[in-house]
Amino acid sequence: MEPQNDIDDLPKNPANFTALTPLWFLERAATVHPTRKSVVYESKHYTWQQTYQRCRRLASALSQLSIGPGTAVSVLSPNVPAMYEVHFGVPMTGAVLNCINFRLNPLNVAIILGHAEAALVFVDQQYFALAEEALKIMEGKSEGLFKPPVLIVIGDETCDRAPLEYALSKGVTEYEKLLETGDPEFAWKPPRDEWQSIALGYTSGTTANPKGVLVSHRAAYLMSLNVVLTWGMKEGAVYLWTLPIFHGNGWCFTWSLAALCGTSVMLRQASAKAIYKAIAEHGVTNFCAAPIVLNSIVNAPPEDTILPLPHVVNVNTGGSPPPPPILLAMSQKGFRVTHVYGLSEINGPATVCAWNPNWDSLPFEAQARLNARQGVKCMCLEGLDVLDTKTNQPIPADGKTIGEVVMRGNMVMKGYLKNPKANEEAFANG
Amino acid sequence: MEPQNDIDDLPKNPANFTALTPLWFLERAATVHPTRKSVVYESKHYTWQQTYQRCRRLASALSQLSIGPGTAVSVLSPNVPAMYEVHFGVPMTGAVLNCINFRLNPLNVAIILGHAEAALVFVDQQYFALAEEALKIMEGKSEGLFKPPVLIVIGDETCDRAPLEYALSKGVTEYEKLLETGDPEFAWKPPRDEWQSIALGYTSGTTANPKGVLVSHRAAYLMSLNVVLTWGMKEGAVYLWTLPIFHGNGWCFTWSLAALCGTSVMLRQASAKAIYKAIAEHGVTNFCAAPIVLNSIVNAPPEDTILPLPHVVNVNTGGSPPPPPILLAMSQKGFRVTHVYGLSEINGPATVCAWNPNWDSLPFEAQARLNARQGVKCMCLEGLDVLDTKTNQPIPADGKTIGEVVMRGNMVMKGYLKNPKANEEAFANG
Repeated sequence: MEPQNDIDDLPKNPANFTALTPLWFLERAATVHPTRKSVVYESKHYTWQQTYQRCRRLASALSQLSIGPGTAVSVLSPNVPAMYEVHFGVPMTGAVLNCINFRLNPLNVAIILGHAEAALVFVDQQYFALAEEALKIMEGKSEGLFKPPVLIVIGDETCDRAPLEYALSKGVTEYEKLLETGDPEFAWKPPRDEWQSIALGYTSGTTANPKGVLVSHRAAYLMSLNVVLTWGMKEGAVYLWTLPIFHGNGWCFTWSLAALCGTSVMLRQASAKAIYKAIAEHGVTNFCAAPIVLNSIVNAPPEDTILPLPHVVNVNTGGSPPPPPILLAMSQKGFRVTHVYGLSEINGPATVCAWNPNWDSLPFEAQARLNARQGVKCMCLEGLDVLDTKTNQPIPADGKTIGEVVMRGNMVMKGYLKNPKANEEAFANG
Repeated sequence: MEPQNDIDDLPKNPANFTALTPLWFLERAATVHPTRKSVVYESKHYTWQQTYQRCRRLASALSQLSIGPGTAVSVLSPNVPAMYEVHFGVPMTGAVLNCINFRLNPLNVAIILGHAEAALVFVDQQYFALAEEALKIMEGKSEGLFKPPVLIVIGDETCDRAPLEYALSKGVTEYEKLLETGDPEFAWKPPRDEWQSIALGYTSGTTANPKGVLVSHRAAYLMSLNVVLTWGMKEGAVYLWTLPIFHGNGWCFTWSLAALCGTSVMLRQASAKAIYKAIAEHGVTNFCAAPIVLNSIVNAPPEDTILPLPHVVNVNTGGSPPPPPILLAMSQKGFRVTHVYGLSEINGPATVCAWNPNWDSLPFEAQARLNARQGVKCMCLEGLDVLDTKTNQPIPADGKTIGEVVMRGNMVMKGYLKNPKANEEAFANG
């Protein structure tokens, strides 16, 4: 393509151009708010300075293990501090982070590890057996040529010690020991090209074949800002992780929280009681919740709640529209619920449907009708339309005609890994 | 530079990559909030749908006049709706917007128009004589080879009609008439490359020689989001324009407001009375104010005020730190003041110093001391340091040592137009 006429021919230089990457957010948070809390989990409380140092240690240690550009590093972990740190430490080496759904069976985990060609797997002690079984399946299929990925076990003092001891007895390195081998001043660099991949996430459950969705540093940067703006999240937000981080990198909130210099409050398992407790103890301002979690919050026994809430708590819910009665009950308890729609191929929300307080007084059917079109496109998504699947023409916006949602923009995935057929289908007609 | 290893070689395609440009924000605002107010000025009230149509008409009309990529289009106008519209209509053609300080004398205006090689000048009727004089100076210097830029006069029914009548008698086209020649469905396109220039602004006053600062579509996009995030501005914000838009494209707020689907409330001239009136009439949530404006707000006679304020009003002030007594008085009246530091070469704020409410009770000297370091870097600025001017090494952050502020990142200008020497100096040592 020929370049367009421009008024000048000023080249990019190191002072005015750098790759867009969410890694900058971490560096800034550590500089701007070194002592502010970054991650809180049980008795572990880190500051941004500490988190930055831990991520650099991690990147340094991985580099020493020859992890770098072009390599996938997988993780099987619930929402614990290490899960947050790999989101920075892994891409700081140029490698690609692959978070795996720990609810999958060993065969599916094996398929993913094999397809991604993971060189290293971080595994929470609770899922060590799952990883081990997956590796056995891989070995069995390899016909003697198997070079297993390096395993690193993430220990957790709140858990039963047996699986950790077992892993250590097998000679597996513990996460904290790995960090100790790294340099806290490691000089990481942004990727040379922002189109470089930062994350690889496998679709599962909602579509037939697991496909590896690749996300670029550029898309992750833009999506991180997009979620902040879409939900009007504030600088210094205190975010409670109920959404599993393995799910689309926590909708990019992992990186958004560094941009906001906010605090990640982590739970090994979300329950209504734990959510109310975190609001009371840590001043949680925002969390995400699937309809089932909303339901448990609404129906929690009084002794598990801390009602009335000490401050407004913003709840982001995604996927299919939550039932209006639940929305109404949440609103009556003082939660402000915003509903969005996203998908793996976007790595976060693509459309947003702000619940209109005027709807509260309407009959439920009217509410459901108003909520039927799932919202409007988010700030950083350039194109959105609903097309007739046969003619590829936009359908009328009448709330009745059914079509296929199509999107276009910088937040859309690079494509699926090693799957030209799926890419051809996904990007058909641009 | 050799490309880095990547896990995939998936190419960019129209579905997952487009140039970053703030023009998308306008298209989205018109789609998402077609009937919400975009621009309010005296009796003129536009919706986002109307503003989008007017901007497309403008782009279409300019294209018919052969305005396109590589061409500068200048503007001499106070904060009126046309000034907002040129920020979208001009770059929609690929051309570069050059807003000129209308307080300059005719010679300086002539120098700028000549240096920018402006093909067309939009001029508010109040400044028509200024433009005419500048053109005469240019003609006098040209030794007979002068091809004057096309003039378009922006009429204003709230002004004395004489200058407009005079311009029309000279055969100059009126802005609204120009719009009528354009297509409201004009199919604009984003630039092919986001490094393409969107704006050219001349430094004046604070540095010795006026220099033409070039801003790319990419930088304008990122700065637009940066100001929203820096000031925590909300979706649907009602922004009062007191900051002159010619000043760094209104610190990119022109584009930010489209991103927020917010409302621009415009004033031909800001006064304390007009500011209070706009807060009462239009529900203004945010405005920018230089220290002199803060002073007039604080000292306004009671009959000009509407105290107590009906809601919190956020005030952004820039440049040198405002005197602590003024900050205190503003805070007591219910304004929430945030202080930032920016410069022409960045086209908006680079650092932010949130006023800490705890400081209110301290002695003034202590406040001034706390405010001495002008803040921390904004979200989208990747590098910021204060260097010793001789050694180019960072100075200690002790609030005493004086150094030169240096910045690096995607919001930094492309460079100065036709000024290799200034560029060499500005980008020395990257």
